[in-house]
Amino acid sequence: MKSKRAVTYAEAGVDIDANARWVDSIKAAMVSTFDTRVCNRHGSFAGLFSLDYSETLFRRNYRHPVLIGCTDGVGTKVLLGIQAKRVRDLGIDLVAMSVNDLITCGGEPLFFLDYLAVHKLAPAALAEIIEGVADGCRQAGCALLGGETAEMPDMYAKGHFDLAGFAVGVVEARRRVDPDRVTPGDILIGLPSSGPHSNGYSLIRRLVGRRKLTRPLRGTGQSLADALLAPTRIYVSAVRRVLGHYRVKRVVTAMAHITGGGLPENVGRILPPKCNAVIEVRRWTPPPVFDWLQSQGVDRDEMFRVFNMGIGYVFAVRPTFARAVHRLLHRAGESPIVLGRIKRGRGQVELR
Amino acid sequence: MKSKRAVTYAEAGVDIDANARWVDSIKAAMVSTFDTRVCNRHGSFAGLFSLDYSETLFRRNYRHPVLIGCTDGVGTKVLLGIQAKRVRDLGIDLVAMSVNDLITCGGEPLFFLDYLAVHKLAPAALAEIIEGVADGCRQAGCALLGGETAEMPDMYAKGHFDLAGFAVGVVEARRRVDPDRVTPGDILIGLPSSGPHSNGYSLIRRLVGRRKLTRPLRGTGQSLADALLAPTRIYVSAVRRVLGHYRVKRVVTAMAHITGGGLPENVGRILPPKCNAVIEVRRWTPPPVFDWLQSQGVDRDEMFRVFNMGIGYVFAVRPTFARAVHRLLHRAGESPIVLGRIKRGRGQVELR
Repeated sequence: MKSKRAVTYAEAGVDIDANARWVDSIKAAMVSTFDTRVCNRHGSFAGLFSLDYSETLFRRNYRHPVLIGCTDGVGTKVLLGIQAKRVRDLGIDLVAMSVNDLITCGGEPLFFLDYLAVHKLAPAALAEIIEGVADGCRQAGCALLGGETAEMPDMYAKGHFDLAGFAVGVVEARRRVDPDRVTPGDILIGLPSSGPHSNGYSLIRRLVGRRKLTRPLRGTGQSLADALLAPTRIYVSAVRRVLGHYRVKRVVTAMAHITGGGLPENVGRILPPKCNAVIEVRRWTPPPVFDWLQSQGVDRDEMFRVFNMGIGYVFAVRPTFARAVHRLLHRAGESPIVLGRIKRGRGQVELR
Repeated sequence: MKSKRAVTYAEAGVDIDANARWVDSIKAAMVSTFDTRVCNRHGSFAGLFSLDYSETLFRRNYRHPVLIGCTDGVGTKVLLGIQAKRVRDLGIDLVAMSVNDLITCGGEPLFFLDYLAVHKLAPAALAEIIEGVADGCRQAGCALLGGETAEMPDMYAKGHFDLAGFAVGVVEARRRVDPDRVTPGDILIGLPSSGPHSNGYSLIRRLVGRRKLTRPLRGTGQSLADALLAPTRIYVSAVRRVLGHYRVKRVVTAMAHITGGGLPENVGRILPPKCNAVIEVRRWTPPPVFDWLQSQGVDRDEMFRVFNMGIGYVFAVRPTFARAVHRLLHRAGESPIVLGRIKRGRGQVELR
C-alpha cells in the first residue's frame, strides 16, 4: 500500500491551470479567423457557426445544402518539423490536408477544428502551431471554430506532439462536382505543389537519415529543411475562382487532391470504370527536392506512386473550356499545367 | 552515401496496400450508422451529409440553422485500455466526449469523424475500435461519415495508438440553449455517470500503479478494469427527449457536460456572473470506484476537482418544471438526481 500523502492532479503530470492559460493564449489566433457567422460564446462546450440561411445571399446560393466533413493529420512530417525546430507551418499543413479534400466535391469550407496532443504543454511552441493553423484557416477562408489540446506525457515522447484536423463545408446539391460526369476527351489540368506536401514522410525521413537538415539542396538556394518543410499549398481560392465563374455550365467534371499517395492513385479515384487518364509526365518538371529524394535510391515508379511529384491538385475539365479554365487559374495567381486527358479505358491512370 | 538499392515505401514502415484493405473492412461499421441523409460516394475525398432542408420535416424545425462543431480525444484512458487489452469501448468514449459537449447548446448531432493514429495497423484491434465508434454513433443518432487512420511507427510506441473525434450538429437559432438565461431559483438535475468517463486518467493510472487490473473492486463484483474502463455514457437520447417535449416553453436554461474536470469547473461554465450554484453532495452516492481512488491517497477536494464523482451531465431547469423534467428523464430510462439549485452569487459553485 502506498503512502497516504495527498496526490494532486498536477503531480501526476497534468496542470489544469496551465491548460487554462494556454486556452486563453490561442483565443487571439482563433478570433483572427472569425467572421459574423461565428457565434461562439466564451466558455461554452461547443463551437457555433450560423449557416445564415435567413440571409438573402445564402438563400440565393443554397436551396438544398449538403454538408461536407473531412479529417486528416500531417503524418510523420510532424517529426521532421520537430527535428528542424520549425513547427509553425505544420499548422498550415494540417488545414491544407483537410480543406483540399473538402473542395474536390465543389464545396466551400466553413469552419475547422484542430486536435493537438502533446507530451507537455510548451506554450511558445504550441502558440506557433496554432498561429500556423489560423494562417491556414485564413488562406482557406474558414473559421477556426475550436480545438482540443491534450497533454499526454505517457503517450508522446518528450518534445513530440501529434495533430489532427477537421474541416466542415457546404455545397449546393445541384452543383456538387461528382466524378460520374468524367467523359473521354476531358482535359486534365494540374496545379503545382510546393514539395511533398504532407505525404510520404515515413520514406522521406528514412532517406534523410542522419543528414543535417540545414545542408543546402543543390541548385536551389534552399536547405533540405526549407524544401522538405514547405507548407502544403491550399487550393481553395483558385478552385473557388473557377467554380464561381461557371455558375450554370458544368465545366469542371471532377477534381482530385493528390494526397496519401501519388498521381496514379489519386487521379484513379475520379475515374469512371470505362475511362483511363493519360498523364504526360514531360509536361512539367518536378521540384529539385524530388530529384534529391530519387537520388537516394528510390526507383522512378515508386517516386510517382508515393509522392505528388510537383502536382498537388488536378482538375478534369470539358475540352472546349480547357483554355478558359487555364486562363482563370492564371489570373488567380496559379501556374496551371495541362497534364493530359481522359480517354476510353478501364479505370486506369497511364503515366507516359 | 547510402547504397543505391531501391527503397520501397513498405520497407520504410508504411504499407499502402494493407491500408487499403483496412479501409474496406471498416466500411461495414460505418454503413451501420448511415441514414438517407448520408450521400457518400465510394472513393471520394470527403464525406457528404444532406441537411435535407428541402424536406418538410427539416423546414418545419429549422428556419435559421446554426452548425455546431466539437472535438475531443479520450486522453490517457487509451493507455489503460491497451494495458487491459480492452479497446472496443474506447470508441464509445471517443464519440461520447464530443457529442455530450455538442448537445449542451440544445443541438442534435448529425455526423461524426474519427482520427486514429497507430504504431502499426493491427486490423483486428482497429476493427474493434471502429466497431466501438460506430456503436457510439448509433447511440448518439449520428452518422460515422468518415475518418482517417494514420500509421506512424516512429511517433507511437509499439501497440500504442491515439484517438481524436469530431462531431457536427445543428440547432435552430431561436431554440439554442444559452446559459445567459440561468436565473436564481433554477434547479440543478444531474444524470449519473458510468464511472470516471474519460477524464482524470493520468492521475488514475498513477494511482493504479502496478496493481493488476483484473483484481476485484471490493463490494462490486467488478474488476478494477471493469470499473475504470466502463464506457462514457452518451446523454443524447435523454437530452433530446426533454428538449423535444418542450418545443415552445424554454424550460431548460443551461446544460453542462462534466468533462475535463469535475462539477465545480464544469457547472461553473454555465453560471452567469451574478449567480452561484449550490450542489448538495449528499444527494447521491458516487460509484465505489471513486472510493477506491480516494483511498489511494487523494483528498476529497481534489477528487471533486478532477473527477465527475458519479454525475456526468447537469441540467439547469426552471423550478416550476423541475418535477416534470425529472419525470421525463425517468421515462427516458435515466436515474436523475436533484443536485441543488442556482442562487444569487458571483459565478461560484458551492459544494455542500
